[in-house]
Amino acid sequence: MSYNIVEKLDKLFNPKSIALFGASNKIKIGTISLLTILAGDYKGEIYPIHPRDDNILGIKAYPKLKDVPKQVDLAIISVPAKNVPSVMEDCIDNGVGSAVIYSSNFSEVGEEGKRLEEEVIRIAKKGGIRFVGPNCMGIVNTSINLCALMNLTIPRKGDVSMVSQSGTLGTISMINASSHGVGFNKFVSSGNEADLKMEDYIEYLVQDEDTHVIVAFVEGTRNGKRFIDVAEKATESKPFIILKGGTTTAGSTAAHSHTGSMAGSDQIYDALFRQKGVIRANDEQDMVNLIKGFSKSILPIGKNVAIYTSGGGFGVLTSDACEKNGLNVAKLSDETINTLNKILPPFWSHGNPIDITASGGMSFDSRINVESMEILLSAEEVDSVIFMEFNFDGYMEKMLPEIPNEDIKNIMIVATEGGLLDVESETKKIIELKERYKKPMICVNISGTYYGGDKILEDGGIPVYLTTSDAAHVLSKLLYYNEFLNKKRRVIDEEKDMIDIKERITK
Amino acid sequence: MSYNIVEKLDKLFNPKSIALFGASNKIKIGTISLLTILAGDYKGEIYPIHPRDDNILGIKAYPKLKDVPKQVDLAIISVPAKNVPSVMEDCIDNGVGSAVIYSSNFSEVGEEGKRLEEEVIRIAKKGGIRFVGPNCMGIVNTSINLCALMNLTIPRKGDVSMVSQSGTLGTISMINASSHGVGFNKFVSSGNEADLKMEDYIEYLVQDEDTHVIVAFVEGTRNGKRFIDVAEKATESKPFIILKGGTTTAGSTAAHSHTGSMAGSDQIYDALFRQKGVIRANDEQDMVNLIKGFSKSILPIGKNVAIYTSGGGFGVLTSDACEKNGLNVAKLSDETINTLNKILPPFWSHGNPIDITASGGMSFDSRINVESMEILLSAEEVDSVIFMEFNFDGYMEKMLPEIPNEDIKNIMIVATEGGLLDVESETKKIIELKERYKKPMICVNISGTYYGGDKILEDGGIPVYLTTSDAAHVLSKLLYYNEFLNKKRRVIDEEKDMIDIKERITK
Repeated sequence: MSYNIVEKLDKLFNPKSIALFGASNKIKIGTISLLTILAGDYKGEIYPIHPRDDNILGIKAYPKLKDVPKQVDLAIISVPAKNVPSVMEDCIDNGVGSAVIYSSNFSEVGEEGKRLEEEVIRIAKKGGIRFVGPNCMGIVNTSINLCALMNLTIPRKGDVSMVSQSGTLGTISMINASSHGVGFNKFVSSGNEADLKMEDYIEYLVQDEDTHVIVAFVEGTRNGKRFIDVAEKATESKPFIILKGGTTTAGSTAAHSHTGSMAGSDQIYDALFRQKGVIRANDEQDMVNLIKGFSKSILPIGKNVAIYTSGGGFGVLTSDACEKNGLNVAKLSDETINTLNKILPPFWSHGNPIDITASGGMSFDSRINVESMEILLSAEEVDSVIFMEFNFDGYMEKMLPEIPNEDIKNIMIVATEGGLLDVESETKKIIELKERYKKPMICVNISGTYYGGDKILEDGGIPVYLTTSDAAHVLSKLLYYNEFLNKKRRVIDEEKDMIDIKERITK
Repeated sequence: MSYNIVEKLDKLFNPKSIALFGASNKIKIGTISLLTILAGDYKGEIYPIHPRDDNILGIKAYPKLKDVPKQVDLAIISVPAKNVPSVMEDCIDNGVGSAVIYSSNFSEVGEEGKRLEEEVIRIAKKGGIRFVGPNCMGIVNTSINLCALMNLTIPRKGDVSMVSQSGTLGTISMINASSHGVGFNKFVSSGNEADLKMEDYIEYLVQDEDTHVIVAFVEGTRNGKRFIDVAEKATESKPFIILKGGTTTAGSTAAHSHTGSMAGSDQIYDALFRQKGVIRANDEQDMVNLIKGFSKSILPIGKNVAIYTSGGGFGVLTSDACEKNGLNVAKLSDETINTLNKILPPFWSHGNPIDITASGGMSFDSRINVESMEILLSAEEVDSVIFMEFNFDGYMEKMLPEIPNEDIKNIMIVATEGGLLDVESETKKIIELKERYKKPMICVNISGTYYGGDKILEDGGIPVYLTTSDAAHVLSKLLYYNEFLNKKRRVIDEEKDMIDIKERITK
């Protein structure tokens, strides 16, 4: 990508002014887009273009772009497909720098749409306008409070950036991750990629200082080689998470219909992803899980996991999940076991998983959990800890409708206060441990429902998952990426050594 | 299993009176168990046994079991392990029929515990007492309002029954399924299985008329052959869902420590499960997903799926998930496409997945969704429908904290009322369609958060999942079980034919 394009994308993501085609005072996509821009608190100038109304949602509107007295940085276009070429011509006349085209009915619907799309490309090229879409849902840059999206989506601010070939999937994933405290910096729904491509955005994000984690939902690429090249550049400096859609014949056919892209062989992608250090997500939920893991957790330096649980079955399932994901259930040293013996009840499992049993969980002070976890984190044979916790309030909430007697309900609630494994009250101490020992801690909330305690853990850098398999899978990907980085560094060091030797020889 | 044992288990699950050892007026496991029995609204007699207090939680208590004036059906024992033998002796003197032993510190902790466990077995055998546990969490029979559990768990009433080698995992799974409207009839946390085994419970549930779906969390079996035999009997008449823990070396080691069971080879289990029509769950979440699917949905008669979505990416991922799970993304006939053309916007995908696009989802009356789904269900080439819906309120709830301006928030909420894909208002019509066409419908709530609309769908027999992979996986298991039943029926028919021919020949 030439310097010119980096500069262009910088302008696309940082417009000082926006012209909006297709907003009105009725509820339609252009209007929702304007609402979203306002809701995001964009500070630049906004010029709605409307043939009749002189204001849209209280903002001064102009009949034509030529009536706008200034040159505009970004045009957002939400008009019927057949009108897009003339709007683009107007943009050229104004000197607009970039455009986002929401409109659909282009190449994704067949030959006629394809011809129209080519006309738009031709006009844009003529005027030097680079554009996102068509058939896309827009862009975000939280650094300048810009949420130029056609659906109502305001993500949390942060350092994850995402490119998605499905706007719906991308925006929903952002909001789901936001609700777990993950923040986003930039987002693009790339649509048909008539002009700007997935690869352009990724390359831009690689050099973008506000982006620390890159995520992509990819149905297909127009230029496989370039995609792999930018992926390689990305993973050198930032975790790059990819959810690949269209990995089967059926999915590939659907992808072609969706954005006109060709999907390519899953095996080829998988092999290339592994080689290049790309973190591959299995489905939309796994993608959010991985985003959370990589934006919150530190990376493990080895594969040895300690599993801390009060439910033996969960210990067994976590062990299975660890082994299936290439992790190792750490063999505890005699010293570690002896130290644990001093504080745990006699019936604990005396090994890893560290199972304090349900009786243990119900009968002793939860501070012992924190002490046990400290013993595990300080043990040389342990690289990371997966521990279970339980949202008791959520459990009661699900169950109470089944209890007819109000008195009993109240007794139950009082009786169990302070009982069971109560991570919430010990959350801050657990976070301190993670900070002190610099080993990843992953939490499994075995109740199946997130709650307030999880938010505190997650804000403290301990991601929480609802299943043992999710926890082990994310931890294994954190390890995979660290191992990739180490290998990369070794290669670079070896190359340096070679150069040193060469220099010495030639001296 | 002899008739005698069926009778014994019938008595275990249907006690008219309970003696409870280990409850007091302080919070401990026995006390929580009594609370749970009371909360469950058990109608039989309860005799707490306590050396000093003459009442426990307001119920008349007795110093010794011999002071109880009547013969007792069930003893629930929550005393230190070393005291269990003498309690069992007291039970024999009373003529107690069955026992549930919560106490831990038996065979799961080593040789000494194993000897103690053998002593308990010997005493029980002498007195003809069959018992659950030790190291278990209890039993449930909602037909008689019995929740004899050591943790506070009151599941919804229904026709699913479960045996779990992890009490915590079992009770949590029941409550998670309950919160989706799944009801349970019987439950056993089988613990160390010193006397009654997993296989006994399963065989009992096979002939139990109140049980229509059987679920088991299995870490290991004591008698593999008998387990497979009862599994075979089970699947002939009822869906039998198994989550197998200890499928790896690490998991198997953990399982041995947990309940002393040997785990066995995963490949052997997998092959046997497939052969016997067992429905295998991948993890604890998948188990709840499958319970929901099998207790709510009808079974598909073929593998052809129609996918209805307003998010193209979700259509692609669902297509991938279907193919990966052995389902077929149905090729729509020209007739079906032409009929859909009449009501869908021109930019719909004109194929399967039926993608009405985000623009479509946002711009037209949600009644069109119902009409489209009816066209799909009535099509001969479609055996089942997976459709997407969106919890808009949940989405807004997650997002609103990110919006600083209250006015904009309110405008956004008003602006979007009645917009987007609104399944909730059409839920009843969708359920009617499923009833009329007798084809399974599976819903994917793409927002990632369940809400009220899902409850209505699920109560109407349409299970809702949060990911495309979960939906496709459950649907594939529904098909797998129907295909198993059909194969089974064909074999039986062929055998009948053989007998007919034989009869005719010998006549």
